[in-house]
Amino acid sequence: MTASEPTIDDFVSGVIAGNRAILSRAVTLIESQSPQHEKKAQEVLQELLPRTGKSWRIGITGAPGVGKSTFIEAFGCYLVKQGRSVSVLAIDPSSKRSGGSILGDKTRMENLSREPRAFIRPSPSGDSIGGVARRTRETMLVCEAAGFDLVLVESVGVGQSEVALRSMVDYFLLLLLPGAGDELQGIKRGIMEMADDVLVNKADGDNRQRAEQARLEQQASLSFLQPATPGWKAEASLCSARTGEGIPQVWERIERFFRELEPKGVLANRRRQQTLDWFADLIHDELQRRFEHNPRIQARLPALRESVLRGETTAVSAANLLMEEFDGSEKG
Amino acid sequence: MTASEPTIDDFVSGVIAGNRAILSRAVTLIESQSPQHEKKAQEVLQELLPRTGKSWRIGITGAPGVGKSTFIEAFGCYLVKQGRSVSVLAIDPSSKRSGGSILGDKTRMENLSREPRAFIRPSPSGDSIGGVARRTRETMLVCEAAGFDLVLVESVGVGQSEVALRSMVDYFLLLLLPGAGDELQGIKRGIMEMADDVLVNKADGDNRQRAEQARLEQQASLSFLQPATPGWKAEASLCSARTGEGIPQVWERIERFFRELEPKGVLANRRRQQTLDWFADLIHDELQRRFEHNPRIQARLPALRESVLRGETTAVSAANLLMEEFDGSEKG
Repeated sequence: MTASEPTIDDFVSGVIAGNRAILSRAVTLIESQSPQHEKKAQEVLQELLPRTGKSWRIGITGAPGVGKSTFIEAFGCYLVKQGRSVSVLAIDPSSKRSGGSILGDKTRMENLSREPRAFIRPSPSGDSIGGVARRTRETMLVCEAAGFDLVLVESVGVGQSEVALRSMVDYFLLLLLPGAGDELQGIKRGIMEMADDVLVNKADGDNRQRAEQARLEQQASLSFLQPATPGWKAEASLCSARTGEGIPQVWERIERFFRELEPKGVLANRRRQQTLDWFADLIHDELQRRFEHNPRIQARLPALRESVLRGETTAVSAANLLMEEFDGSEKG
Repeated sequence: MTASEPTIDDFVSGVIAGNRAILSRAVTLIESQSPQHEKKAQEVLQELLPRTGKSWRIGITGAPGVGKSTFIEAFGCYLVKQGRSVSVLAIDPSSKRSGGSILGDKTRMENLSREPRAFIRPSPSGDSIGGVARRTRETMLVCEAAGFDLVLVESVGVGQSEVALRSMVDYFLLLLLPGAGDELQGIKRGIMEMADDVLVNKADGDNRQRAEQARLEQQASLSFLQPATPGWKAEASLCSARTGEGIPQVWERIERFFRELEPKGVLANRRRQQTLDWFADLIHDELQRRFEHNPRIQARLPALRESVLRGETTAVSAANLLMEEFDGSEKG
């Protein structure tokens, strides 16, 4: 950043005032991997913290091709018409700054991106899902400080991004395609267990009947599962992001979710646990990073790993040797 | 242990000769948490390593009450009659040395425990699933060095023990009760994804029809899932550990599993990956343990955690503070 970079106070007051240009730059600061920017980002976040926590945090996942962007655009525009403000974030570990993530091309949410009450931000790029998730989580906090009623976070529906997403949202929505069974293969079975509701998208035109069939099958599957959120019974519904059918019902479900569960303290408990887990993960990742980047470890690890694989050294002995090496370098 | 404790050579030669008394004492050595015993155990294991890896490693899980012990006794006795030698181990993080684990009471496998070609060992006790799993894994290696054709490892069917078990066996069998649906609630849904076969136990007497119904439902569920082992299609079958019906078919399936997949290298690949994962876990656990036991960390962690929970400090800042504290104590 240049000399004209906003000060910490500029960032804090600008974000709180809802200034979109400053908000964007604050997110860019959070996404930066330079140590200097990271330090400044923490100072900004520290000041904003008392203003965070009031948004409803909504996670949306589904296999590629299920129409997540189209759904989020339709749903976001509906929310804005209801007088709500909404920010849209994403977790996509495969995104590259150069290539553009699933949300990188804003023209895919052309209508929503023109709404003054909406803020759309593509996925941060990063080497690890942990780093990408951490930055999305901090961006979510900044959006909360900026006063958005809802934060929608999209994940790409492959790999570990759903688990990271579930760990930072209150309500988790799974999108599916009409036609169950084979199509389900694209999505890992465990995802169903994390969903607060299931939505069969593209339930329009010729798809209508297959969609209803899929909904029935999903509803049956859900009945076998323990609730993702204690006290909340997940339902399978239909929608068409293209025609807008079913969109108001999604919002009704979400409102009901918060209306019913907030007074019971269920959501506060979840957020508390999420924060503790996140904190533990940060420490764990840093311990692991230090170990892996230690030159003495890097020098010895490959040969020891091979020795374990060949059955020449027990895993425990090899791990002990590496720890002694690590101790030597830390103390030396 | 007393002065009459076997030497490393005594242990190694005794285990290789199949001496049951020495084998038992070797396992006790592995289970000991005294640093001196741990060191000796590693030396014994190191010598035995070239003799390990030839057994078929079979994991058996199922919710409490499904009849795992009865099944293992029936199956083990059948294997012995077929001329095979078999050792039976368990992973039960809830077991206490005083209380007795699921396998602690050997009278529950009275017939099998009298067989000279069988060796039954209760679960090691331990504070963490990681520690219990590690000791079971090392005991498995010792049993392999003692020449057992099969090692059966049982898990208790609750919590994380199945995941630990799946990570150390070649073939993974899930036992269920007749009557699907509600009964399934007792077992986490993700377990189905790890199973190489599903067996509905207690398919006898009045249960027969319900068991067949459960089998059909399980077979349908399995068809939606990706195979737990590449190239192997999981099947749901019936058995009665009480009458012995279906037991020979379980053995047929297992023999077929190894006959078909061993030549393709699938199982060697899995073992290789399991070893690498185990090695990584050992390092990870040790790094975490050192951090958590560090006096400076113990002094500061609770207040910082509270501060993060109250929204007074960002999780990243708090983690950074702890890391600085950790650095200071490591270098100091």
